Amino acid sequence: MEKKRILAVGLGLIGGSLAMALQGFEDYEVVGAVRSQATYDKAEAMGAADRLTFDPASELPGADVVILCQDPAGIIAFLQEHRDRFKPGCLIWDVCGVKTAVMEAARCLPDGADFIGCHPMAGKEVSGIDNAEAGLFRNTHFIVTPGPNATREHLDLLRRMADWCQFGDVIETTPERHDQMIAYTSQMMHVIAVSVCDNEELFSCVGFEGGSFRDCTRVAALDPAMWTQLFTLNAPALSQVVGALEERIHQYRVAIENNDREGLNAMLAHASDRKKQINLERARGDDVHPKF
Amino acid sequence: MEKKRILAVGLGLIGGSLAMALQGFEDYEVVGAVRSQATYDKAEAMGAADRLTFDPASELPGADVVILCQDPAGIIAFLQEHRDRFKPGCLIWDVCGVKTAVMEAARCLPDGADFIGCHPMAGKEVSGIDNAEAGLFRNTHFIVTPGPNATREHLDLLRRMADWCQFGDVIETTPERHDQMIAYTSQMMHVIAVSVCDNEELFSCVGFEGGSFRDCTRVAALDPAMWTQLFTLNAPALSQVVGALEERIHQYRVAIENNDREGLNAMLAHASDRKKQINLERARGDDVHPKF
Repeated sequence: MEKKRILAVGLGLIGGSLAMALQGFEDYEVVGAVRSQATYDKAEAMGAADRLTFDPASELPGADVVILCQDPAGIIAFLQEHRDRFKPGCLIWDVCGVKTAVMEAARCLPDGADFIGCHPMAGKEVSGIDNAEAGLFRNTHFIVTPGPNATREHLDLLRRMADWCQFGDVIETTPERHDQMIAYTSQMMHVIAVSVCDNEELFSCVGFEGGSFRDCTRVAALDPAMWTQLFTLNAPALSQVVGALEERIHQYRVAIENNDREGLNAMLAHASDRKKQINLERARGDDVHPKF
Repeated sequence: MEKKRILAVGLGLIGGSLAMALQGFEDYEVVGAVRSQATYDKAEAMGAADRLTFDPASELPGADVVILCQDPAGIIAFLQEHRDRFKPGCLIWDVCGVKTAVMEAARCLPDGADFIGCHPMAGKEVSGIDNAEAGLFRNTHFIVTPGPNATREHLDLLRRMADWCQFGDVIETTPERHDQMIAYTSQMMHVIAVSVCDNEELFSCVGFEGGSFRDCTRVAALDPAMWTQLFTLNAPALSQVVGALEERIHQYRVAIENNDREGLNAMLAHASDRKKQINLERARGDDVHPKF
């Protein structure tokens, strides 16, 4: 009996890691589609997939699961270019950090193709297949935004793949809610990191940095083209949370400049209490979101 | 022959860890001064010092090294209260995160007392002796701001203590430079962390947080009273860098709202390049600061 086929399109950090992590999953063959010879050679040397190809179009008609691992623009372009090549009844999912824009683009697909937006909340401050590893997803969140036609079979299949990749949990939500949350928890952290690194003292501060500085700026070494896409595709939500951050930081500055110790102490106590509470909640392992 | 004496005043996270780390250092006995019975009992159970006392005043005349490990206000008050009890020729150093204010307070000491401002750049997001450990300082920076009368003997002694505690390096600078750098690398990180935690989405974002969010907000669970002191004692430098941060974050928000992809890409590329450069510099182990 012929094996079923998972086609991972794009073997960067996330795609390469997924292809590696998914090897051996049930009775699936993992095929990795790459564009450059350099990535092909590295993926081959690493054994990143069961099979590699430069031609995803010819693999699509036989692919039961297609995972789109490009940047947002690449995913949207791929859906439009190949919309009629997907195997009827197949599951298509993506990995990118914005979901509303991608779910809208997926509307171009024919009825038989089931597209489920996904966001593996894993990453590193470095990119590319050189940094891919099968264990990248261990204990991270796998966020899923099913379209209206998502089948139970595909949601179950996705959960089994997530388990195989050792994700910590699978969280189902709407694309809009995902984008709002991610603007706060991820995109804003990147805005902060790059803003801190733009300070003229960056190079002279070596020797004075502790864990908080290393941690906060870690993600600043980002891919500018990809993050330009992620930021602009989620502009309203991101703009809103960044505006709120500006305002709060400004309030701290005013309190510091006015030597308002009472006000400052109250603000710090408020925030510190909130942080301690969220630590406790996570330590208790509360499920505050529906999972499937 | 009687042992020489190190007196650590205040056995919190830093003081407790230093007392533990310094045990066995040359021919010194480590005495820990505490204020509460609870800390005394914990320190005794942990073997945090060779000997414990509630009465630092009576230990001071026999102490060759005094390490002040209270919060800034506590250090300043201790210097004023006990200025005439220090052993002539002794070395006094402190551990707090602002140096100009403490060095100024130390001017009240008589000529024979050599005060050297210190800042071990180690910490945890939790405080108190419960969290103290001898290995806390491993590979962290030990910043030193000697006063005009610091002796070579005391600077050498301080370096040997730093080596014994496994600090990664010892960096000598002025109190003013220290405070300017720390405003940027440490205090501003705390302003950011608490500002992020003040967002109304904090509790609902659980399940959507990745490494960048955990890293950036880690230090928000701070001690409000101590950080109110640290911020207000360094108000001019902190206000200046926080103002620059506000401005840069605002520029990102404007670019995002205007869908200015070209401008955004240029800003992100600039910051990302800077971050990658500083990573390289640190990987090469360059010494960009004089050390003694």
